Amino acid sequence: MTTIAGTDPRTGMTTDITDETTTDEVARLARAAAAAAGPFEAAGRGFRATLLRAIADELESRRDLIVATADRETAIGPTRLNGELTRTVYQARLFADVLDEGSYLEATIDHATDTPMGPGPDLRRLLVPIGPVAVFGASNFPLAFSVPGGDTVSALAAGNPVVVKAHSSHPATSLAAFEAMTTAARRVDAPEGVLGIVFGQAAGAALVADPHIKAVGFTGSLGGGQALLDIISRRDEPIPFYGELSSLNPVVVTAEAAAARGEAIGTALAESFTVSAGQLCTKPGLVFVPRGDAGDTLAAAAAAAVGDAGAPVLLNERIFSSFGEISSRAEGLNAVSVLARGGAPTEEGFAVAPLLLSIPAAELTTRATEECFGPMTIIARYDNTDELHTAIAALPSSLTGTIHAEDGEIERVSELTAILRAKAGRVLYNGYPTGVLVSWAQTHGGPWPATNTLHTSVGTTAIRRFLRPVTWQNAPEFALPAELRDSYDTIPRRIDGRLVVPTQS
Amino acid sequence: MTTIAGTDPRTGMTTDITDETTTDEVARLARAAAAAAGPFEAAGRGFRATLLRAIADELESRRDLIVATADRETAIGPTRLNGELTRTVYQARLFADVLDEGSYLEATIDHATDTPMGPGPDLRRLLVPIGPVAVFGASNFPLAFSVPGGDTVSALAAGNPVVVKAHSSHPATSLAAFEAMTTAARRVDAPEGVLGIVFGQAAGAALVADPHIKAVGFTGSLGGGQALLDIISRRDEPIPFYGELSSLNPVVVTAEAAAARGEAIGTALAESFTVSAGQLCTKPGLVFVPRGDAGDTLAAAAAAAVGDAGAPVLLNERIFSSFGEISSRAEGLNAVSVLARGGAPTEEGFAVAPLLLSIPAAELTTRATEECFGPMTIIARYDNTDELHTAIAALPSSLTGTIHAEDGEIERVSELTAILRAKAGRVLYNGYPTGVLVSWAQTHGGPWPATNTLHTSVGTTAIRRFLRPVTWQNAPEFALPAELRDSYDTIPRRIDGRLVVPTQS
Repeated sequence: MTTIAGTDPRTGMTTDITDETTTDEVARLARAAAAAAGPFEAAGRGFRATLLRAIADELESRRDLIVATADRETAIGPTRLNGELTRTVYQARLFADVLDEGSYLEATIDHATDTPMGPGPDLRRLLVPIGPVAVFGASNFPLAFSVPGGDTVSALAAGNPVVVKAHSSHPATSLAAFEAMTTAARRVDAPEGVLGIVFGQAAGAALVADPHIKAVGFTGSLGGGQALLDIISRRDEPIPFYGELSSLNPVVVTAEAAAARGEAIGTALAESFTVSAGQLCTKPGLVFVPRGDAGDTLAAAAAAAVGDAGAPVLLNERIFSSFGEISSRAEGLNAVSVLARGGAPTEEGFAVAPLLLSIPAAELTTRATEECFGPMTIIARYDNTDELHTAIAALPSSLTGTIHAEDGEIERVSELTAILRAKAGRVLYNGYPTGVLVSWAQTHGGPWPATNTLHTSVGTTAIRRFLRPVTWQNAPEFALPAELRDSYDTIPRRIDGRLVVPTQS
Repeated sequence: MTTIAGTDPRTGMTTDITDETTTDEVARLARAAAAAAGPFEAAGRGFRATLLRAIADELESRRDLIVATADRETAIGPTRLNGELTRTVYQARLFADVLDEGSYLEATIDHATDTPMGPGPDLRRLLVPIGPVAVFGASNFPLAFSVPGGDTVSALAAGNPVVVKAHSSHPATSLAAFEAMTTAARRVDAPEGVLGIVFGQAAGAALVADPHIKAVGFTGSLGGGQALLDIISRRDEPIPFYGELSSLNPVVVTAEAAAARGEAIGTALAESFTVSAGQLCTKPGLVFVPRGDAGDTLAAAAAAAVGDAGAPVLLNERIFSSFGEISSRAEGLNAVSVLARGGAPTEEGFAVAPLLLSIPAAELTTRATEECFGPMTIIARYDNTDELHTAIAALPSSLTGTIHAEDGEIERVSELTAILRAKAGRVLYNGYPTGVLVSWAQTHGGPWPATNTLHTSVGTTAIRRFLRPVTWQNAPEFALPAELRDSYDTIPRRIDGRLVVPTQS
């Protein structure tokens, strides 16, 4: 039996945590999840809201332990990790609210009626759970995108059992979070098998291949996502794969914005690409800055902030070596110059110096626009709008696109909005893309390769990934889900084409 | 240049219709579609509703020509084809209503507010068009699932240009319908490139591979769908493929229903599996009937109706030879007996005799549950509930599952509902699965291999396949789509978590 070890990224020292999950055990967990699916759905929305709130409570009650464990395994630091736990707890409670509100079911009733095609039957539609979901934890969010994260709570809210593949970067944190969740499940008497966890790469592969698994949620690299997609393509039954994969997150600063607040933008930019050691999916990886004095001021302010920055510790050895490789390659590219490098890293562990590069926008190549996970960004200097638009058009799509402009730049901002919207799932104005609020209107997704589907993985609509529509035709009332009976009136429903919302107190 | 010919299935005689589309022309059409995408979206929902209603009007005004042409190419007969044109026109108008109503945009506004994670930004979310869509016409619905069909009008409604691949079974019908659509587009002054059509298998393959195409809608065989999926897997950018692929549509008759109305069920069943020559995705391909006298009566009534039936003409040579192959194979299976065979076919053309087979439920194999496109069905006789449930559990998933039961069979019907719902996208009671109403609550889809995605291809929610979410963060009002501005109040929107519906007149 292979042992799963955790590594302290500050020192590189390892500690044994648990055993790799055997393929037999993976199969047992997937079977148990399939067996739990019916009872879990039958327990109803109210029960699932209670479970999610219990999970939130149990996570909150273990805050100190979880944050300390996660900090030891990820070096992310207690401030961000406390914020991440708060967000994770908030997220679980928000999905409980989504269940209470009930719109997500898309309950729709068409009563029998005459149509131009003849008499129409009584049709009633509802979204139902898709079945057991495999969730792959992310390296960079040991809580919010991992064991108790958004994929897990949205899949549970939808009514699906979940088996999580713990990320190798934080096995002890995964165990601590899982323990909180199973305690909550026992406390509310959830069906056995609703929650499972596996450790190890082979176990993750076996999980995705298992016929009881009906969808996969994944946040990670393009390469890792592709490997799981290859496994899915060999299944008898293909299943949806929701991958959040790769993102450059371009930022555009107009000449007027640079002139008005170049220094402030430069400083804030340095903060945005070095926060969490630059290991955020929404890190600004490319910043378009106008040529000239105002742009120079912006670049100088960013360079000064980077020069003053210490050497943050990366999450693991793979990211550490990948950062070294990609940042060296970028630094050596034709026409690239180094604007600033942060404090020298210590000898041990996975610390690296933040790096700020510059390149003329006209010289941008696919090498320069490769995603680099870690504290590096590239400032691309542009001469005019044509050059800027041409450069943006050649970029891969991203999760986000950001515009810094001044009031009154209506035509410029409208143009940039259209160009960036075609390449991103979220367009920001006069802000920074890091920081993704969990809310009703959020989108964390975008055209390929940002994600591979038309869905968000953050925010309330993430639940839609784990549901499928079913229509009942001329069903006797007892055979209908409660939400589709005529007498049910506590959730929004579409009845004979008209959206009917319950009276709100 | 290769010529595309139409075939009269009643005689097998061919007529030259048009030329196969060259790959250069496919590329030109895809580029034109991409160029039209921006202007078409910018023209707005009201414009697109007008376009859809104009398409409906133009189709209606060519009714006699289109029905006559389609009948010559498909032998479906004027009654069904007139009904299909009515449905196609209704469908286009219903999507215009969907645009007017506006819920499909999922407009969501979260105003800036304090959150447990700190100050939250202003976030506004809307579904936007995905980009040019390729639609593959189906053999069996030359109108409702082809050039002017559900995939086309839902993609147009969403705001996407469409390039249709005409089905080889009905090129002249495709041209006539396309002519109606382009006349409508010119009449309302739609952007050039919003509609395109290609002919020939190589042109279809080139279309799916073209980088300007952002989604594919397909109704057809599992093999045909797999071939297109293989092309998509070789693209740089993967795109969604919406395939409606294969369906057995099991029907279950309880002992009580057989006793109460076995004869009526048997007669109606024969009608349901022979209508449109059995070439419907929702044809009941397997019928569970209890052993004993009541079941015998049902089977005898079905057999009598089939024996009296003439020999319907199939759509084309491929379906004709495939029906011969699969029905002979089924007839030769162990434990299968022939209950009835319809009238002998004529010597020329693609006519076949309807076929009713019987098998003990315990002897069902994957060979017997293979989809057979054409007028054949199998009655599976069962002894008890256990045998029935075991047999259903082993079936592939379908578009539909049907239950015939008597009032008061509450436990039995509840059990069957649960079992069939796991295997289907629509569950019917005391009816027949053929006939799919276009409406708000319809689902025409189901777990693999019925469809390969979590969406319907019939009904108003089919529009969701061709949209992706975008969120604007702290956007100035002028940069927002009209539907996301604070002052806009004529569509349902979710504002700060609360669904707000406009006052209805």
